[in-house]
Amino acid sequence: MTTLPPNPPAIILVRPQLGMNIGAVARAMLNFGLTDLRLVQPRDGWPNPEAGPSAAGADSVIEQARVFDSLADAIADCSLTLGTAMTTRDMIRRVVSPAGAVAEMQALPSRSAIVFGPERTGLTREDLLHCHALCTIPSNPDFGSLNLAQAVAVLGYAWVIGHEAPPPSAMVNHDGPASQAELAGLIAAFDARLAENGFYNPAPGLEDSARRMLTNIFTRPAFTQAEVQFLRGVVRSLAEPRKPQ
Amino acid sequence: MTTLPPNPPAIILVRPQLGMNIGAVARAMLNFGLTDLRLVQPRDGWPNPEAGPSAAGADSVIEQARVFDSLADAIADCSLTLGTAMTTRDMIRRVVSPAGAVAEMQALPSRSAIVFGPERTGLTREDLLHCHALCTIPSNPDFGSLNLAQAVAVLGYAWVIGHEAPPPSAMVNHDGPASQAELAGLIAAFDARLAENGFYNPAPGLEDSARRMLTNIFTRPAFTQAEVQFLRGVVRSLAEPRKPQ
Repeated sequence: MTTLPPNPPAIILVRPQLGMNIGAVARAMLNFGLTDLRLVQPRDGWPNPEAGPSAAGADSVIEQARVFDSLADAIADCSLTLGTAMTTRDMIRRVVSPAGAVAEMQALPSRSAIVFGPERTGLTREDLLHCHALCTIPSNPDFGSLNLAQAVAVLGYAWVIGHEAPPPSAMVNHDGPASQAELAGLIAAFDARLAENGFYNPAPGLEDSARRMLTNIFTRPAFTQAEVQFLRGVVRSLAEPRKPQ
Repeated sequence: MTTLPPNPPAIILVRPQLGMNIGAVARAMLNFGLTDLRLVQPRDGWPNPEAGPSAAGADSVIEQARVFDSLADAIADCSLTLGTAMTTRDMIRRVVSPAGAVAEMQALPSRSAIVFGPERTGLTREDLLHCHALCTIPSNPDFGSLNLAQAVAVLGYAWVIGHEAPPPSAMVNHDGPASQAELAGLIAAFDARLAENGFYNPAPGLEDSARRMLTNIFTRPAFTQAEVQFLRGVVRSLAEPRKPQ
């Protein structure tokens, strides 16, 4: 009898296209004890009647699925977000195997998330900005594109067998990692002060590019809550008028 | 870059129902470097135009798929046959995990096979008679039935990551294991002699039951080719008239 590990990750589908695939994902999730399905801008809206048949009885997952306007909103309560992608699209991110991803998630007392992109195109560079690391399923170099629900099944299987593996070496972090909402708050604080200070180049497009770089820089390391608070103090301090010495 | 292990197993679908699922299986296979698809009595015949779209480019697997009249025919060249099932259906068989199955297959120089049953019902007891061991994917005890192609994807993933694991302890077998055809020959030899000798009870149904037991007994252990030859000698000897001493 299989024992399901506690505290399973959320499965986040970004701009999923076919309701049938969302149902197949729900089935694969429940097969491996995953129940928290989150949808970001599903193409055909939600609920979608085409999801039911392929869910094949995983109705509870379908019924409890939540819809979000943005990936940032969907991961607000998560402190580890892993994007599934075959390549890093030239970004600086750690790349972990499914087993490595599972080991990290199972060492974490807080909520984690695995993010999957649209069926046809996968996650964009913009989506991956919000991910702390990329999880790549090892596959045929000449035919590597997995069906969405099959990829979820592989990660679900890795989740269930992972707890039998010895615990990985891990950073000791007594504070607990910062949630994505805390990080987003830090980034917004930087952003506000920088905008006030005229940091952003007013040329069209460059402001967005600078904002993406800010998100990218602060999403990469595993900040603790205390570190995020400290950095917010740094922002405040830098933006205050200097006191005479 | 993923390196695909050599000598991948055949994937055998017994009485598959939906062409769409056969295509999805082909895609999952090629994702993980499996190319030898065998179909036993596909419900809607073969080729099946509904397989193409869900194969999503794995056309080579579809085109090279072979059709067999019986599971026994499909596994004739295989020396290790693993049936996927959630329970043993009261049979005496070893049960292996996907990782354990992969370790056994990768330690074997000859061909192995993984057998999947029809979508709705899975493999029957009759099908499982032909399997040396049962492979069970660990899953939610309350929702354990996997979609066919998702189960193939999980075993394909286990196949690809398996070669990174340390080699299992294994029986040293310099002869190489007997193929299923050799075993079938042995069973047929027993069967013929037993029939001649009036061993089988003529009551309806009991003869089939005795034949199933014979298949079951000889499919379970990992006989070498030499052992199979020896046992055929035993059959001949027992059936010969005794010589005066």
